[in-house]
Amino acid sequence: MNKKKSNIPKGTRDFNSDVMCKRNFIFQTIKSSFECFGYSPIETPAMENISTLSGKYGDEGDRLIFKILNSGDYLSKATFSDQIESKSLTKQISEKALRYDLTVPFARFVAQNRNDIIFPFKRYQMQNVWRADKPQKGRYREFFQCDADIVGTKSLLCEIELIQLYDDVFTKLNISGVKICINNRKILSGIIELMNATDRFDEIVILLDKIETLGQENLYNLLKEKGLAKDSISKLNDFLNVSNLEDLSKLMQSSKIGMQGINELSYVYNAVNNVKLKTAVLQFDVSLARGLDYYTGCILEVKSSAVSIGSIGGGGRYDDLTSIFGLNDVSGVGISFGVDRIYLVMEELSLFPKNITDSTKLMFVNFGEKESLYCLPIIKQLRDSGVKVDFYPSSDKMKKQFNYADKKGIKYVALVGEDEILSGLLTVKDMQTGNQEKYTFDELMKKII
Amino acid sequence: MNKKKSNIPKGTRDFNSDVMCKRNFIFQTIKSSFECFGYSPIETPAMENISTLSGKYGDEGDRLIFKILNSGDYLSKATFSDQIESKSLTKQISEKALRYDLTVPFARFVAQNRNDIIFPFKRYQMQNVWRADKPQKGRYREFFQCDADIVGTKSLLCEIELIQLYDDVFTKLNISGVKICINNRKILSGIIELMNATDRFDEIVILLDKIETLGQENLYNLLKEKGLAKDSISKLNDFLNVSNLEDLSKLMQSSKIGMQGINELSYVYNAVNNVKLKTAVLQFDVSLARGLDYYTGCILEVKSSAVSIGSIGGGGRYDDLTSIFGLNDVSGVGISFGVDRIYLVMEELSLFPKNITDSTKLMFVNFGEKESLYCLPIIKQLRDSGVKVDFYPSSDKMKKQFNYADKKGIKYVALVGEDEILSGLLTVKDMQTGNQEKYTFDELMKKII
Repeated sequence: MNKKKSNIPKGTRDFNSDVMCKRNFIFQTIKSSFECFGYSPIETPAMENISTLSGKYGDEGDRLIFKILNSGDYLSKATFSDQIESKSLTKQISEKALRYDLTVPFARFVAQNRNDIIFPFKRYQMQNVWRADKPQKGRYREFFQCDADIVGTKSLLCEIELIQLYDDVFTKLNISGVKICINNRKILSGIIELMNATDRFDEIVILLDKIETLGQENLYNLLKEKGLAKDSISKLNDFLNVSNLEDLSKLMQSSKIGMQGINELSYVYNAVNNVKLKTAVLQFDVSLARGLDYYTGCILEVKSSAVSIGSIGGGGRYDDLTSIFGLNDVSGVGISFGVDRIYLVMEELSLFPKNITDSTKLMFVNFGEKESLYCLPIIKQLRDSGVKVDFYPSSDKMKKQFNYADKKGIKYVALVGEDEILSGLLTVKDMQTGNQEKYTFDELMKKII
Repeated sequence: MNKKKSNIPKGTRDFNSDVMCKRNFIFQTIKSSFECFGYSPIETPAMENISTLSGKYGDEGDRLIFKILNSGDYLSKATFSDQIESKSLTKQISEKALRYDLTVPFARFVAQNRNDIIFPFKRYQMQNVWRADKPQKGRYREFFQCDADIVGTKSLLCEIELIQLYDDVFTKLNISGVKICINNRKILSGIIELMNATDRFDEIVILLDKIETLGQENLYNLLKEKGLAKDSISKLNDFLNVSNLEDLSKLMQSSKIGMQGINELSYVYNAVNNVKLKTAVLQFDVSLARGLDYYTGCILEVKSSAVSIGSIGGGGRYDDLTSIFGLNDVSGVGISFGVDRIYLVMEELSLFPKNITDSTKLMFVNFGEKESLYCLPIIKQLRDSGVKVDFYPSSDKMKKQFNYADKKGIKYVALVGEDEILSGLLTVKDMQTGNQEKYTFDELMKKII
């Protein structure tokens, strides 16, 4: 047996029926909330042109994009020598790549279909994305994202709505008490401005993004190593130890952009508190940075309060994402659900409802050819009435057939042999109680429908 | 504006909300039939190891598989010279590929999970597949397949059930009168045996597969060119002009395998006629071949009787597919639905139900900040009751807001301004009739739920 042949690529997964039913429960819950909030579905292709994706996720992101080899004799158009490097060859032999997230393809979609779209455009998208990341718990190379975005308006009502949407979904999933951390990129800009380090914005934000694993002291040491002035670091320390918006506001007075961020955040914060969340807790976190470059306003991140697994959702406002595709002045804001991690949280906390698998109701035992042909029209009639019916395909031993029904969680088993053909009745066994009774077809229908 | 940047790769598609709703209608119909017939869902990764896929679809298939470039400095492990060819380089720089169909990954899944699976195993799978084919009408590079398979039994009841499943789905989709063509690979083996051309099986089958476009005369000429004896071709001609199973049987007497095929086919044919199909027509077609190599018994192909677009479904029995992954003696049979072509057929015949888009029921007009904050809790309460509600995010001109509601097919628009805040009533306009009335919250709920 060639074991190697039947593996799947590292970081990818097969999903069996049990897992599929649980995943579908999550998908359905998210989808129904998306629709309840007025979002419409779209889908984009798994492959995009590399030019669409590259340069959008930073250098690290570019490296983690899966590239697709051109078809046919792809080398015929490439020029290369012994000294050629992977990076320069890639450009010559690969034009397409697998999507890395849903936001950039969405921006491309909006720019491309600008004339057909009614703005403000509220869309949701639920599809796989692929990243050549190192696999670890809760991190896969193929994983599912569920995004909701609104583009074409700067209204902060969108931020409020998206926070409510998070609350709605996690409440329906029974993951209560999730922490929705909120910050605003403009507040970060203000802090860095007041640190006199505006030219170092990206570096500082990338480190800030790792503060939870680093701790404050290590963060300051790293910034010192990078040549940041003592005063700057001390200023940052003042900000990071602020616990509420009022104190932050006092420190921020001399930064116009910083104050703008605080005002936006306060508006959203107060409105959300006013309308009240069902189970989630909105929490201001001045160190929240979100790695991705394209955010410009509000940023959000959701964490489970009971399971440490990193963020199970995130998002924010991006003022200028579509301009890279030639469409200017279209502000957008969106959130994403990390379904694979949500699954792990629900599994760990046993939050999946029982009887989630809407399984087959009735199985007909197979007694042989004659009996089979007799059963077929009965089975057809049951299925036509919407009953989920299985017919064991061969006349194996009873024990094997019952074992099949048992393992598949089938509730009733119909035994139709010679006696039943003669009497016209159907013998049906309840697999849970073990009771066995005879029914007419109509009686059976009444019993199981 | 860089137009080039915002294209998508050739043969791939974006789906807007209208199209998504129609596609989802097809998916839901197929899914509910699959489950009604006792099939359980599984999913496999988009990427498989190349070793899993290559050699399974013939040379042509191998060429059409999309390969994924290894990540990182992939050239560091490759040895190559000026003279290197694409084919030999591919092996060194690409380990993974996108799945080409759902059957081979399914066989890999069965072999890999053999110890956890309860046989006979009935699974369905609905996922995208990718082929580097030349795009044309109804043929894309990314397209959706819906497969149902049973593995672990040779029972012909499976073939019967799958034909009923085709009938069930197409009837529910309102595509009535589809032609389900049926043949058996053993009949083809018998014919070719009696042509004394068993060593040319693959060549003949590949040509036979194209008989509809070629016509009989051209087929015979091509076989002649390939060096087939006159007698062989004349024998083939006898078979191809047979119109029923009895006549076929007379010609086939001296081929054991051929007779076996006829017996299997008769059994299935008679049982299906006995139980009766709802709208589909089962039709024996001696020239039906199905290109793929792995079929060994019954083969099926579905065609629309009203739209010429090639097959909208196909499948068959494969006796030994899992053995390539080290699992022997597991016979399987399955069918596939070509969703993209089914979509085109339904579109062409206007078969999609009206009101397929379950769109937003009610939109709140935005009069400004104060009114917005007043509306938020009302909207929350409506959404909590399951009503699909949209809130226009900014206080744009009335005309723009109403235009948005109109284009999105929203049924009611709520106008909550200063008067309404004072009275506590909600003014609601019916977008179809133009009627405008005032309601209490409870009255509104009664009206729209």
